[in-house]
Amino acid sequence: METVLKTLDEVEELAAGVLSAHGCDAENAASVAATMRAAERDGSASHGLFRLPGHVALLKAKVVNGHAKPTLEPLAPSALRVRGDDGFAPRALAVGVPALTEMARAQGVAALALTRVVHYAALWPEAEALAEQGLVAIACTSSPPYVAAAGGRRPVFGTNPMAFAWPRPGRAPMVWDQASAAMARGEVMLHAREGHAVPETAGIDADGRPTTDPNAILKGGAQLPFGGYKGAAIALMVDLLAGPLLGEVTSLEAGASASVGGPQLGGQFVLAIDPAKMGGDATRAEALFSALLAEEGVRLPGDRRLANRGRTPVEGVAVPVSLLREIDAL
Amino acid sequence: METVLKTLDEVEELAAGVLSAHGCDAENAASVAATMRAAERDGSASHGLFRLPGHVALLKAKVVNGHAKPTLEPLAPSALRVRGDDGFAPRALAVGVPALTEMARAQGVAALALTRVVHYAALWPEAEALAEQGLVAIACTSSPPYVAAAGGRRPVFGTNPMAFAWPRPGRAPMVWDQASAAMARGEVMLHAREGHAVPETAGIDADGRPTTDPNAILKGGAQLPFGGYKGAAIALMVDLLAGPLLGEVTSLEAGASASVGGPQLGGQFVLAIDPAKMGGDATRAEALFSALLAEEGVRLPGDRRLANRGRTPVEGVAVPVSLLREIDAL
Repeated sequence: METVLKTLDEVEELAAGVLSAHGCDAENAASVAATMRAAERDGSASHGLFRLPGHVALLKAKVVNGHAKPTLEPLAPSALRVRGDDGFAPRALAVGVPALTEMARAQGVAALALTRVVHYAALWPEAEALAEQGLVAIACTSSPPYVAAAGGRRPVFGTNPMAFAWPRPGRAPMVWDQASAAMARGEVMLHAREGHAVPETAGIDADGRPTTDPNAILKGGAQLPFGGYKGAAIALMVDLLAGPLLGEVTSLEAGASASVGGPQLGGQFVLAIDPAKMGGDATRAEALFSALLAEEGVRLPGDRRLANRGRTPVEGVAVPVSLLREIDAL
Repeated sequence: METVLKTLDEVEELAAGVLSAHGCDAENAASVAATMRAAERDGSASHGLFRLPGHVALLKAKVVNGHAKPTLEPLAPSALRVRGDDGFAPRALAVGVPALTEMARAQGVAALALTRVVHYAALWPEAEALAEQGLVAIACTSSPPYVAAAGGRRPVFGTNPMAFAWPRPGRAPMVWDQASAAMARGEVMLHAREGHAVPETAGIDADGRPTTDPNAILKGGAQLPFGGYKGAAIALMVDLLAGPLLGEVTSLEAGASASVGGPQLGGQFVLAIDPAKMGGDATRAEALFSALLAEEGVRLPGDRRLANRGRTPVEGVAVPVSLLREIDAL
């Protein structure tokens, strides 16, 4: 695959420019572009510029409001809502996360409901932002139905990612962000784009048979949850927390009302907990982290992202020429 | 296996009597016995009378205080702690769950830290109790190290169960309760007791090789997380939430300081969220539940337990004669 090296500044400028040219105002374009930059910085190509054409398609189809003005409102002493005004999630998060941080510190625990947003990015950035402020964070969001239930063959759940972040003294937080699907949708799409097979655990074809063809999964088939019925239980939890808990749609409802394919308007749930208000101490986890790392073959979640983060600001990121051509043609 | 039918009242009386005879006061004995009754009622034999000898061993070894007087204290506007006074968790939960319910309704979201408890039961009872009050609940607890990290062979995590409960109008809540281990410890123990093989995904032997022998896993080996590194990430989250977040031990620390094997003193984290205070509505999930059940081969989590619950109060439960003999001999 032919690639071109881009600096992270170039990545962010390219993204912001394309988004602005397709109907985003400056604040919305900047929020989304910053999130794409963070993905590329951390080596998460499937959440970086690769998603720019999808963002443009959502703007063109008027699924997403490029001029969204998210509004913050308290719901209860420990609950907040940001109405996303049909925009991309990063703009709404820029409004909600600082308020959630403040509330969690005062209350011990607090939850943020994002509604009417399209979440088409990774979840770790918002979880990490909270942990950088010393809070423990859980975030989840649903998506249109792509994943079969345990024992089923119809897509009912979104890939329903969940992120967890834990603060660490003097270093980047420990953060994981994983789809309830065996494989992230973005990864399946990337495999399809690059003509690669996927593992047999990733999904089933239209007849419910396991397949290694990403196109068979994407067209008429279904992804599978990770870890069988236990992963499906996680997917169900995520669907409920990001949907009905917030007065928002389930993945199934989002899919049923969709006028175009891909990500749809829906909800996001973000929880923040202050260890200092729970009688705890985040630094006490360091002994466990050290014990994990002492064993050969064991890594901490997010280690690869952090290693990339040390490298890409200096070396830049390799962007496929085919993707740049596609972006140029937009 | 030879069994004897017992009514649920007989199960509860037997448990309470044995616990009282081994140093539990009336309140502690009643709390634990009620939890064992609930397990037997729902067909969860591995959390029922099967655990009575283990409870007695913990009392005899003075790991657990049979006269525990748990104390409730507010930590923050949305955070509560119950110090368990080294007792079994059901007694501390009897103190903490009503207070958590009230706090979550007032605040929207609230968290309960249980400390210095031995949690040697299922987690779903406390999650279900909250959902019966209309709240969404998440509960988790750690345990001594039994489970290897992803890519590792040393036991570092507890089986680290997590429970999730969602309220349903006019019927029992939807509740799941699952170990982060591929197989619950109780199930591995039950298989060892009954001389049955376990699936190859359940664990590794002392040399790090996959095995179907439950004894090789229990003695010198390690259980495996469900779903590979994603299940291990869940196990890590549970360990952190039930431990350092609350000023409590990690599974690894609990194991290192243990004077006897089996469950140890540690923490439990319980979160409750009021959908009405999050802009949501629990009944909106019913459409998703119906869609799931409309597909052949798909069940809702907890369905089997609820089916047993309809049956056992009338039919009683079959208790192995070998177990009753073991209990008699205590």
